[in-house]
Amino acid sequence: MPDQEKDDEKKMKKQVSKAVVKRLPRYRRYLEDLKRKGVERISSSELSELIGYTASQIRQDLNTFGGFGQQGYGYNVEALYREISQILGLDSDYKMVIIGVGNLGHAVANYTHIYKEGFEIIGLFDVNPKLIGEHVNDLVIKDLDELQDFLKDNDVEIGIITTNKSSAQSIADKLVEGGVKGIWNFAPVDLSIPDDVALENVHLTDSLHSVAFHIKHKIK
Amino acid sequence: MPDQEKDDEKKMKKQVSKAVVKRLPRYRRYLEDLKRKGVERISSSELSELIGYTASQIRQDLNTFGGFGQQGYGYNVEALYREISQILGLDSDYKMVIIGVGNLGHAVANYTHIYKEGFEIIGLFDVNPKLIGEHVNDLVIKDLDELQDFLKDNDVEIGIITTNKSSAQSIADKLVEGGVKGIWNFAPVDLSIPDDVALENVHLTDSLHSVAFHIKHKIK
Repeated sequence: MPDQEKDDEKKMKKQVSKAVVKRLPRYRRYLEDLKRKGVERISSSELSELIGYTASQIRQDLNTFGGFGQQGYGYNVEALYREISQILGLDSDYKMVIIGVGNLGHAVANYTHIYKEGFEIIGLFDVNPKLIGEHVNDLVIKDLDELQDFLKDNDVEIGIITTNKSSAQSIADKLVEGGVKGIWNFAPVDLSIPDDVALENVHLTDSLHSVAFHIKHKIK
Repeated sequence: MPDQEKDDEKKMKKQVSKAVVKRLPRYRRYLEDLKRKGVERISSSELSELIGYTASQIRQDLNTFGGFGQQGYGYNVEALYREISQILGLDSDYKMVIIGVGNLGHAVANYTHIYKEGFEIIGLFDVNPKLIGEHVNDLVIKDLDELQDFLKDNDVEIGIITTNKSSAQSIADKLVEGGVKGIWNFAPVDLSIPDDVALENVHLTDSLHSVAFHIKHKIK
């Protein structure tokens, strides 16, 4: 990596708060819509109306990455979209495997198959003999025993865990050992993962329980 | 509601921060495990080791609800589990409908069928003629046109939206009109919902993009 890039990278690490990161995919989603509708530029206050953050919040967030807005002109939708995509790492392609091809794994496989934009599932694994050998889209479900060799032979960036709770940690260990750089975990358990491997959890039950809580207490 | 209860309710609304609410399902998950393993009591520092929050954070969180811990004894696992369940509204039963029974809707239906504990899906709806009439578990998928009548005839608390982006808002409007108290939204769109209806989003694409971001920048 050239020095300039290294410096930029360092600067970004320092400045990007977790909160901003959480908001970026959402900015990107709205910009994608605008792009599709043929909108070429947009002001922070128009963005504010759409997204629901305040205009000053938006300016502050987007300035974090170097300030793409111009006084009196606003943001160039296409450029901002591309920039945020790049910051999010969506200018690279990610190869992924799914472990656990029950209903949830199946759903994630199909979901990603449709919405992938740079995310490609190249392997599906399960322990259930009824599932092994079955097809999902154009992939055959493999025996979990083959995972380690598969990870050796292929550059897999992301492992998706859609198994039950009890096997999730041992699967995560195998994925880490096999060199994945990130784990997208749907099992209802908090995984232990080395610091240099990214971990993102989707805890569906927790989320459903939040609905119940908000219904009961009417707290928003 | 008796006055005392009303006061308690008011007090809770004031005191319970959004952050605590987000942590409660997680506390509950760990307490459920402990209960299953036969553990009867646990100190805040033991809980801290398990969950990863600091002991003082845990004490502060749990005190919000009236302080179940006793000096030198710790928390009674069963009582704390029951209390948190109640606070989360899990002492009530929730009737739910799913709109959109593609792969994701199917997965959510099965997921909830297994893990329900008080959450029951009583209706499935879709617009796709190929799906209408099909069975999922013991339910028949109905035509979306029947949703309004169904909501009139049944006490549905939660509407689950697993449709595509473009129809999500109109479905949400129908659910609200039909009297649901909460919406669990999986469509990649931010819904407009009246203030007295709970809304919880599961934005899978945003979550996947976060994995990519963290891989690219190694920020945790």
